Amino acid sequence: MKKGLLIILSGFSGSGKGTAVRKLLEKYPEDYILSVSATTRQPREGEVHGVHYFFCEEEEFREMIVTDSLLEYAGYVGHYYGTPRAFVETALEEGKDVILEIEIQGALKVKEKFPDAVLLFMTPPTVSELKARLTGRGTETEEVIAGRLARAIEEADGCEAYDYLIINDNIDECVEELHQLIRAEHKSMARNAETIERIRKELSEYQKGEMK
Amino acid sequence: MKKGLLIILSGFSGSGKGTAVRKLLEKYPEDYILSVSATTRQPREGEVHGVHYFFCEEEEFREMIVTDSLLEYAGYVGHYYGTPRAFVETALEEGKDVILEIEIQGALKVKEKFPDAVLLFMTPPTVSELKARLTGRGTETEEVIAGRLARAIEEADGCEAYDYLIINDNIDECVEELHQLIRAEHKSMARNAETIERIRKELSEYQKGEMK
Repeated sequence: MKKGLLIILSGFSGSGKGTAVRKLLEKYPEDYILSVSATTRQPREGEVHGVHYFFCEEEEFREMIVTDSLLEYAGYVGHYYGTPRAFVETALEEGKDVILEIEIQGALKVKEKFPDAVLLFMTPPTVSELKARLTGRGTETEEVIAGRLARAIEEADGCEAYDYLIINDNIDECVEELHQLIRAEHKSMARNAETIERIRKELSEYQKGEMK
Repeated sequence: MKKGLLIILSGFSGSGKGTAVRKLLEKYPEDYILSVSATTRQPREGEVHGVHYFFCEEEEFREMIVTDSLLEYAGYVGHYYGTPRAFVETALEEGKDVILEIEIQGALKVKEKFPDAVLLFMTPPTVSELKARLTGRGTETEEVIAGRLARAIEEADGCEAYDYLIINDNIDECVEELHQLIRAEHKSMARNAETIERIRKELSEYQKGEMK
């Protein structure tokens, strides 16, 4: 069976990447699987172990770091978050395309371990639109919004190393664009070397008259 | 205006690439334009200068070679065929994606001059299918078919350098796949550096309060 692709999606907070991933998985459940992160934080109400996160103790998490069982990890407000390697590798072997929604710094670490990973960066079409989305609920103070804008500048740091820029202008079109882009990536020559090899072999066997 | 992409399509004789290109242009006439080759051979009935070929004298053709006015050229049964550079460059500047249907050796020469060119290689799904298509009309001798198979082996020589492998199993699906693949290529980060730059600039202006 052909291996799946590792698809890493990053982007601005407020770019709609979370919604896009959810809709992509809903629309094409046979094609994609979402990577489940490990975390040391407590489960919130409704969160299921193995579905939303793999919840674990800090000691367990440190053990995963030491044994290189995480593709990347980071600390955030006193807790660890990371991407378990085994989950991703198993899903890829099963031919599923694995979607990983992480920030750029983590993504670049994963890319070192999986050079074949496809890196996508999502943005709203304009900064006005980004600001509109950040302030959308109308309940945030100017300072909170300013903080988010500052964070947005950080969030784009390193995105030039990505493969594709996805402009999320319309969520449903965006989801379909993501799907088509991933389908196109499956056609890359590097991922189809075996097919070419097989055709060459068959052609030369035909020529020798062995397949008559 | 954003520049168009140069799309080079090669593939086995009998892969259906000619039909695919024709249908792609019929279906999306606003998006694509077919590169018109120059040739020193005589026009056949119904062929129109500037539509099917730019027909020219051998002296004229040699002049184009000397002045580097051709992206690639080759001799075939006593005549020259080549790709006029000006036609391609003008169409790209006008934002059209230019489709160039040429063989691998010529394609690799064009790629040297247009490193951004996207190279697609088209194949039927299997060699049996390829043979079926080559013998389809049922009027060819075994030797003619054998000759075509030998040619097919040559036709794939160098295809590993291509970007994508297009398997033509169903012509209408294939045309749509081509279109989607080209749409995806437009989203490559390298082709959207300006968008990222603009967003960065706007973000930092927002932050400075200049756009309030």
